[in-house]
Amino acid sequence: MAAASSFAPQTVVARATSGGHGGASAEHLAIPAGFSLCSLAGKSVKSQPSVLALTPPGRRIGRRRAAVRAAAVETVESTETALVEKSVNTIRFLAIDAVEKANSGHPGLPMGCAPMGHILYDEVMRYNPKNPYWFNRDRFVLSAGHGCMLQYALLHLAGYDSVKESDLKSFRQWGSTTPGHPENFETPGVEVTTGPLGQGIANAVGLALAEKHLAARFNKPDLEIVDHYTYVILGDGCQMEGISNEACSLAGHWGLGKLIALYDDNHISIDGDTEIAFTEDVSARFESLGWHTIWVKNGNTGYDEIRVAIEEAKAVKDKPTLIKVTTTIGFGSPNKANSYAVHGAALGAKEVDATRSNLGWPYEPFQVPDEVKSHWSRHIPAGAALEADWNSKLAAYESKYSEDAAVFKSIISGELAPGWDAALPRYTPESPGDATRNLSQQCLNALAGVVPGLLGGSADLASSNMTLLKAYGDFQKGSPEERNVRFGVREHGMGAICNGIALHSPGLIPYCATFFVFTDYMRGAMRISALSEAGVIYVMTHDSIGLGEDGPTHQPIEHLASFRAMPNILMFRPADGNETAGAYRVAVLNRKRPSVLALSRQKLAQLPGTSVEAVEKGGYVVSDNSAAGAVPEVILLGTGSELEIAEKAAGELRKEGRAVRVVSMVSWELYEEQSAEYKESVLPAKVTARVSLEAGSTFGWERYVGSGGKAIGIDRFGASAPAGTIYKEYGITAENIVATAKSLL
Amino acid sequence: MAAASSFAPQTVVARATSGGHGGASAEHLAIPAGFSLCSLAGKSVKSQPSVLALTPPGRRIGRRRAAVRAAAVETVESTETALVEKSVNTIRFLAIDAVEKANSGHPGLPMGCAPMGHILYDEVMRYNPKNPYWFNRDRFVLSAGHGCMLQYALLHLAGYDSVKESDLKSFRQWGSTTPGHPENFETPGVEVTTGPLGQGIANAVGLALAEKHLAARFNKPDLEIVDHYTYVILGDGCQMEGISNEACSLAGHWGLGKLIALYDDNHISIDGDTEIAFTEDVSARFESLGWHTIWVKNGNTGYDEIRVAIEEAKAVKDKPTLIKVTTTIGFGSPNKANSYAVHGAALGAKEVDATRSNLGWPYEPFQVPDEVKSHWSRHIPAGAALEADWNSKLAAYESKYSEDAAVFKSIISGELAPGWDAALPRYTPESPGDATRNLSQQCLNALAGVVPGLLGGSADLASSNMTLLKAYGDFQKGSPEERNVRFGVREHGMGAICNGIALHSPGLIPYCATFFVFTDYMRGAMRISALSEAGVIYVMTHDSIGLGEDGPTHQPIEHLASFRAMPNILMFRPADGNETAGAYRVAVLNRKRPSVLALSRQKLAQLPGTSVEAVEKGGYVVSDNSAAGAVPEVILLGTGSELEIAEKAAGELRKEGRAVRVVSMVSWELYEEQSAEYKESVLPAKVTARVSLEAGSTFGWERYVGSGGKAIGIDRFGASAPAGTIYKEYGITAENIVATAKSLL
Repeated sequence: MAAASSFAPQTVVARATSGGHGGASAEHLAIPAGFSLCSLAGKSVKSQPSVLALTPPGRRIGRRRAAVRAAAVETVESTETALVEKSVNTIRFLAIDAVEKANSGHPGLPMGCAPMGHILYDEVMRYNPKNPYWFNRDRFVLSAGHGCMLQYALLHLAGYDSVKESDLKSFRQWGSTTPGHPENFETPGVEVTTGPLGQGIANAVGLALAEKHLAARFNKPDLEIVDHYTYVILGDGCQMEGISNEACSLAGHWGLGKLIALYDDNHISIDGDTEIAFTEDVSARFESLGWHTIWVKNGNTGYDEIRVAIEEAKAVKDKPTLIKVTTTIGFGSPNKANSYAVHGAALGAKEVDATRSNLGWPYEPFQVPDEVKSHWSRHIPAGAALEADWNSKLAAYESKYSEDAAVFKSIISGELAPGWDAALPRYTPESPGDATRNLSQQCLNALAGVVPGLLGGSADLASSNMTLLKAYGDFQKGSPEERNVRFGVREHGMGAICNGIALHSPGLIPYCATFFVFTDYMRGAMRISALSEAGVIYVMTHDSIGLGEDGPTHQPIEHLASFRAMPNILMFRPADGNETAGAYRVAVLNRKRPSVLALSRQKLAQLPGTSVEAVEKGGYVVSDNSAAGAVPEVILLGTGSELEIAEKAAGELRKEGRAVRVVSMVSWELYEEQSAEYKESVLPAKVTARVSLEAGSTFGWERYVGSGGKAIGIDRFGASAPAGTIYKEYGITAENIVATAKSLL
Repeated sequence: MAAASSFAPQTVVARATSGGHGGASAEHLAIPAGFSLCSLAGKSVKSQPSVLALTPPGRRIGRRRAAVRAAAVETVESTETALVEKSVNTIRFLAIDAVEKANSGHPGLPMGCAPMGHILYDEVMRYNPKNPYWFNRDRFVLSAGHGCMLQYALLHLAGYDSVKESDLKSFRQWGSTTPGHPENFETPGVEVTTGPLGQGIANAVGLALAEKHLAARFNKPDLEIVDHYTYVILGDGCQMEGISNEACSLAGHWGLGKLIALYDDNHISIDGDTEIAFTEDVSARFESLGWHTIWVKNGNTGYDEIRVAIEEAKAVKDKPTLIKVTTTIGFGSPNKANSYAVHGAALGAKEVDATRSNLGWPYEPFQVPDEVKSHWSRHIPAGAALEADWNSKLAAYESKYSEDAAVFKSIISGELAPGWDAALPRYTPESPGDATRNLSQQCLNALAGVVPGLLGGSADLASSNMTLLKAYGDFQKGSPEERNVRFGVREHGMGAICNGIALHSPGLIPYCATFFVFTDYMRGAMRISALSEAGVIYVMTHDSIGLGEDGPTHQPIEHLASFRAMPNILMFRPADGNETAGAYRVAVLNRKRPSVLALSRQKLAQLPGTSVEAVEKGGYVVSDNSAAGAVPEVILLGTGSELEIAEKAAGELRKEGRAVRVVSMVSWELYEEQSAEYKESVLPAKVTARVSLEAGSTFGWERYVGSGGKAIGIDRFGASAPAGTIYKEYGITAENIVATAKSLL
């Protein structure tokens, strides 16, 4: 394994495994030097190595190393009354009690993962509880989001204001900061929104990518201002989902060495033992993906095993690490542990009592023993010190590297440069017609120069989606400072990775691309962009039957409607260059709302009536030959490639003396946000003769054409033929609009 | 490897690989006995082993074995003028010529995969060109569907009526049988619809599952009436997609030994060399998933390597096999081979000429040399003989095992037993209220007894989706005759596997289940169910905010609208037991249209006005207190769990003397298919006071409430809280309907 040599001189692998995994025997075990014992005052602690006890802020553990005895990896059974055990059991019971009070939730995971949770938050991770948004914090993602009480308990113990005792007591209740799954927009300290399985690990790949990218762009040999780890806990469910394989294949390819995933290997999923559906060799799979792997056999009480594994993972710089941590779901529950019964339901009063008795837990519900409270209290000053230390470093950076510092600060603040949008291209009717996918590339390249946090790419369709930033190279293992990301054919992973990038820093603006129809592959991630307020820009080309010969598998029909129905996402279908630029302008400004741009494969004309600024209204009048002050006889509505056809039809009708208005409905969501007055000015109620034209499902168009109007569209699947033929066969023509409009007059 | 022992006595592995893969050396190679040389009359053939030349129908190659010399695996460079080479080049040029004529398409894959294509269709596979639907045919899936000209060329050579020379010449044109990607509904001989990457390999897992299941249920020691292989060609793109990992993990778990996947390892994807995004060790990954793997290093001309690999794969009975076949994309093109330039565009006249010259091809475009034509012509009589032989076997089976034969024939014909739907449960208002997910389970269990081809399961939510068939065990490696399928947390793979099952035999009716919101994970497969006319039943529970505490990540909002906008799929939201049974009735009858059932987690009342039969109308009057012959003052429309609330509101309004109609819109698609008269009878145009209530997006409801009505729904994300609280906070209440209705009167 390539990684071995990179840490061999300092430390040795602690593979406390049996069979299958080779590695050093116990006699050869060593852990990093310089660790200090936990501050377990007055407790009997036997060779308790601590990864992070009270480290001076800003100093990295991995740099201080020395040998310790093999005994260091013995489990701590003999110290079960020790503080660490008490802290772990506090976590377990906070989860048990909160689920019990809510009579809803998932106690099994927190009970099994409490040891690794404790070690991460109490010993390993660097964070500032009083500023959950401190830039250089370690990121933690609970990919197995149903176990959220684990994270809430940890945030509570660590001193985050977002999770007070009262919040734990209102777990899963209306208006609480402790919802049923971790939600970044509800609970400061939660980085991303998880629950749908596999999303979290893919988000974590995005977080780790962001760190690696920013570190490569901004760190200087003397001043490393970007330097954090990304930790994940994921379960069997996450491992089964295809999205996790996609994202982890990329993580291996990119060599994201600061991504450390702890796999809660508890052999139980909702349907029972994983033997019934999940018998693959997960560690071997991760090795095939280019990860370093470690197996902690005793995740229930093997604190030292966990500690040493994390140290080993941190020492492997060129690969992400999967630590398989074998645990018992519902550890401590005498009758429900190791069964699906403890996964997703309250234990019940009787079993709670039995568990209290079994684990020797005399405390009241929600009670945190004083010594545990006192032990954890150090994280508030320690976190403040960490941040202060980093702030000093940033100040030094600013004085030494002022130009880079300005860019860096804009990325961590999200502040856009004044006048940034002047960089967007503008077009006149005389500008050459072009496909909106090509016009989109002009926008992306224009923006790349003025929006330093813009980075992204395509799911292996860069040359079709037109997404390459020409001034930059590829983000790769050896060139992480570059801004073109090659996602491979992995749409779902791509979307979730972009969510991670977007949520890493306010000024990072990830975009990603595929054919519009393949949003079907990534919808799970796109919905979470919308829910978690991740302002990802989805560049979706080949947006209709206009793509032609590839046929119905590649031709979107219902996709526009499906996103118009989704909350908190902006669906754009720009008609030409100005509308494409306008869509990008809104997309860049909307940092808490993702944008989807549906773009044409085929060439479109630059229309006279469109504008960059009008796009923010969502719908607006493109042309109208009505007399001043009068309303038109008929309104033609269109979007994207069909706006040009609507204009053509309007021309025909006008030749016949009709007063015709053409309206672009480039973004329904934005239009709906306008005032009633504005909307009446665009679509006057008294004009009931309305025809819409869109090369997609008519579903939803009743909203704008009304009971008196007609929607022309496509309510069946597409076909394989040259685009012009399909348009004609499907009646997406000026002739059809003209005839339909006349039928209404 | 466990598999080794199972075939070791008879044959030996032909691992013509270097590095990484251990195995027998060339000296130990052997291939199955009894093979006969290809009928390469008059050609110089050097040790040409044939897997299938003209085997007697019904006899299985794998049973006849003998040793041959090591020379058998030498490549056939020295016989490049032989017929096999000519046939392979015919395939290449049919693809080149068709793409050139269409000026659109993907020549690269067919040029690289022609050798494996030739060997599969000419030597290995058993099929009857004149009856593409013969039950016991080997199935072939081109998962890399963009390379469809490979399959069209093969179907053409093999004598399928669906692909005549004229069809090749109208490749990708309007109305042709040779669309831009393989479509089973357009081209007999194509098993499934591919193009969206990864779907095909997952479909193939479903096809192989179906074979294993039916074989286990119906074969007798003396009469094996179910016995075919499933072959797949997949590319780098398919391998990157998460869906393929999901499905292949299951294939390994299930031990689908008759699934043989040939991986076109050409190192090129659209963005260029796979080195930029895809550097995992694919074979090692498949080994971790429980597959047998083989590497054919020379897929371009190593015919014997390919042959021996397929034989080895067939000999491994307990595992699926991945044959990594290293090829050159666009093989033969002197200037474009081994580059993305040959992937998805015509070669251009000049390069076509250069390729003709390079490969020594003197023939006209679309010309099949006489000797190639003559060679392939044997497949028509051979195929007829295969089918005739099988028919005799079936006749023997019928006379000996008449009961099983009747069931088997109903599965292969799709004929339902007379009166089958009488088994569906029926309810009265006095029946206990229940969640529709539970009522759904009653239906599934009732149907299992009368619909022998019903089988399916859940993505690890069987106990939440309520999908277990109580009379049956789990379909597993050792119990493939059972009918409960455990998919694990793999929604996308599950959907695509079900497409494969549905398209295997007309009487197989697969169902699959997850939470409704997680259709987002499997939408790619669901759309292909709809497009490819695969009558899968999607059992989607937890269909609204009514699931409560799990919160917005788990609460569908836009999903009903998103499926209502999709062509050729039936979206049901039943309100109670009768509507659930009615939805299943329609779903079972619709074998060419998938059905989605949105089912409640929460308990619902059995309503007086619903009925099993009314569901087929899609929308119908549930209650109305208008005077005879009169129309109501107001119409309340609802679906699913909200129909009960609408009824409650109607009761309140009626108490106040209002004439109120309640309409159930259980399936919009079915309602839209009704006559104008029927629709007018349900929603009379003159009643403009209409209120809809649905715990989901209001998007699209304008269609039924019209410009004068109001839609009550949820146009934002859900929340984590007890269901009753969220309903109240979101205004999904009888009070809100009453107030809204009054505002319209």
